[in-house]
Amino acid sequence: MRSVVTLTTDFGLNDSYVAAMKGVILGINPDAVLVDVTHSIEPQNVPQAAFVVGTVWSAFPEGTIHLVVVDPGVGTERRGLALKTPKATFVAPDNGVLTHVVRAYGGTGDVGPGQAPGAAKYLEAINLTNRAYWRAPVSPTFHGRDVFAPVAAHISRGVPVGEFGESVASVEMLPVVEPERRPDGSILGSIVHIDSFGNLIANIRCEKLTGKPWKTVVEVGLRRIEGLGQTYGETGGLIALAGSSGYLEIALAGGSAGKFLGARVGDPVLVRQVA
Amino acid sequence: MRSVVTLTTDFGLNDSYVAAMKGVILGINPDAVLVDVTHSIEPQNVPQAAFVVGTVWSAFPEGTIHLVVVDPGVGTERRGLALKTPKATFVAPDNGVLTHVVRAYGGTGDVGPGQAPGAAKYLEAINLTNRAYWRAPVSPTFHGRDVFAPVAAHISRGVPVGEFGESVASVEMLPVVEPERRPDGSILGSIVHIDSFGNLIANIRCEKLTGKPWKTVVEVGLRRIEGLGQTYGETGGLIALAGSSGYLEIALAGGSAGKFLGARVGDPVLVRQVA
Amino acid sequence: MRSVVTLTTDFGLNDSYVAAMKGVILGINPDAVLVDVTHSIEPQNVPQAAFVVGTVWSAFPEGTIHLVVVDPGVGTERRGLALKTPKATFVAPDNGVLTHVVRAYGGTGDVGPGQAPGAAKYLEAINLTNRAYWRAPVSPTFHGRDVFAPVAAHISRGVPVGEFGESVASVEMLPVVEPERRPDGSILGSIVHIDSFGNLIANIRCEKLTGKPWKTVVEVGLRRIEGLGQTYGETGGLIALAGSSGYLEIALAGGSAGKFLGARVGDPVLVRQVA
Repeated sequence: MRSVVTLTTDFGLNDSYVAAMKGVILGINPDAVLVDVTHSIEPQNVPQAAFVVGTVWSAFPEGTIHLVVVDPGVGTERRGLALKTPKATFVAPDNGVLTHVVRAYGGTGDVGPGQAPGAAKYLEAINLTNRAYWRAPVSPTFHGRDVFAPVAAHISRGVPVGEFGESVASVEMLPVVEPERRPDGSILGSIVHIDSFGNLIANIRCEKLTGKPWKTVVEVGLRRIEGLGQTYGETGGLIALAGSSGYLEIALAGGSAGKFLGARVGDPVLVRQVA
Repeated sequence: MRSVVTLTTDFGLNDSYVAAMKGVILGINPDAVLVDVTHSIEPQNVPQAAFVVGTVWSAFPEGTIHLVVVDPGVGTERRGLALKTPKATFVAPDNGVLTHVVRAYGGTGDVGPGQAPGAAKYLEAINLTNRAYWRAPVSPTFHGRDVFAPVAAHISRGVPVGEFGESVASVEMLPVVEPERRPDGSILGSIVHIDSFGNLIANIRCEKLTGKPWKTVVEVGLRRIEGLGQTYGETGGLIALAGSSGYLEIALAGGSAGKFLGARVGDPVLVRQVA
Repeated sequence: MRSVVTLTTDFGLNDSYVAAMKGVILGINPDAVLVDVTHSIEPQNVPQAAFVVGTVWSAFPEGTIHLVVVDPGVGTERRGLALKTPKATFVAPDNGVLTHVVRAYGGTGDVGPGQAPGAAKYLEAINLTNRAYWRAPVSPTFHGRDVFAPVAAHISRGVPVGEFGESVASVEMLPVVEPERRPDGSILGSIVHIDSFGNLIANIRCEKLTGKPWKTVVEVGLRRIEGLGQTYGETGGLIALAGSSGYLEIALAGGSAGKFLGARVGDPVLVRQVA
């Protein structure tokens, strides 16, 4: 089956680890279409990987398998997961790296047909325990190659996720810092990602900022940006706009907002609307 | 259709932007064969991207689609283009990034069947205006994902370029610095690219340097290199030779000529032929 | 034929060299499945490339073609090789980059059906001389594109390796530093690779360290690590364990052992077993 399998890891591009995973996948499903998301996640930075995965899955066709291996707990008791959603299946360690996927379906970590408040009813999560689908022997330090890659490959061939282990009722979730709506109506969010252009991406959905006749003012660091722009090239200086993932983004025309402001992930971003 | 689609961007490899484009393409044409050219173009460096694209398209099979997204003007009034040539189709913003492609067909920017001197008669350029082939909604900051990728994917499925908008008679061209033939017969060119080995690539075609019984002398920085070599490994020290793209190249055996000479893009290179 | 072709080079990801090779391959075999191993081998570092290739081929399906272009001698008299093994075919310059592949089959450099002691009888090595399978003209500086890529592509279509030139009886081998078994039973090895997590990989096979009731002690730099661990996450501090390629590996939980120890390739690693 010509299914798409994406790969997101912190393995870098200097070693053969990523290629070993691809070799294993192609050995199981020669027709798999492999797409790298990134292998430049900072070593063991699960929140960063969770963010990246959360921004990319919706662009892929239905039935895509997303393999995510950022796995500080490899070889310990942490579970391995296959998470089936209406659009895609994710294969990853159960360490919170799928947080934004679960949240996109309204879930707080509870999954499956349970009745818990916050359950994402359309998701099915499997604890990977069926060694029949693993490589043998399994290296305790490289489940990416020996557990997750073969499972992803078998899913891409049409094996139902139930084959890989038993259903679980909840998955690990990272704490997510939500923007705060303050008494004066302003929104206090924070920077969750800085991309390689130096654009700052905040945790504030842009649909919250529209439909008001007032002017939006964004404060970041010591700067104040008046109004929401449309695109990078239109002004000089700093601009705030609706980024391509639907989040508020702060950019610098022809430069790096991150460097210009000395900004870091976690820094506050305040949005106010003024008459 | 199993068409090749190449991707050249300045998106880097840390974010999910490139993968999002690939997801969109595979959603439209599951059989597309995706090949990365590079995603390490310096942010918004259109001349560098133009150079890279100009050196690579001829190695690909007929019918390849080359998607080039280095797009400082994204979301502004700059046009999007599909440029059909006898060998390939290019999809890119109309900002000069296809300059060397147009020049390879003898064009100066005029394209199509027009009678203007300098028209590249075998080229067809389309202004991308038909939103039926775009993703909806279109992010004003990510036409790569929402305009160019889907258009490239539809072309890879066989949709004729005329479907995507109206023909245009000229495309944007970068100013190209031609080497200067001086009264004494010497050629004054300049460095147009430094590759990751540190090899210096000049804007001087090597076929101009052959067929003479005299000795070629290349001057770069304060150095003088006598004679044209054949390959990197044959001598110690600096060597001038015909590079693999047909341009004069200056290399350092076992090292980086760029670092050794402190050379930069734009630095002069003088070629003389002496008895 | 839908064969896998892997690529390992020192070309980096900034230029179009890798893409040019891929374009050539797809022009010859549109169904080839291309997989990057790495393009970040240090320029002309043949031993590093040999190590990486030696760790990756066994993960790929039977019939894979591995194209390896780290080629300081490009354009000189060094030979080009196709090396057929029971599992895969390698296409590379004959400069030692296939050392670990030949050794995996018990070979010391002699190959083929010869009776020399140390001959790897199941290997077939061909000196690439048949220009009918090359691109024309051949650039003296880019055999990757003009010789090795087209040969790999034709092999991926099923052309027998004997078509590409004559058999040779031996291939170049790098000197390999074997760990030393000392009179007191300890093993003195050295670091052969530092991966991008900073894990140190030694030239000591882990199967040599098992089956003894004693405690293993690893000395590296001024540090002494007691016992072999199972995986990265289980302790704080330095850990020695059996790495995923079967070699002894030294890691630092949550950090880079390489940076912590200031270690370099070639540094000694001593393994002792104590009561």
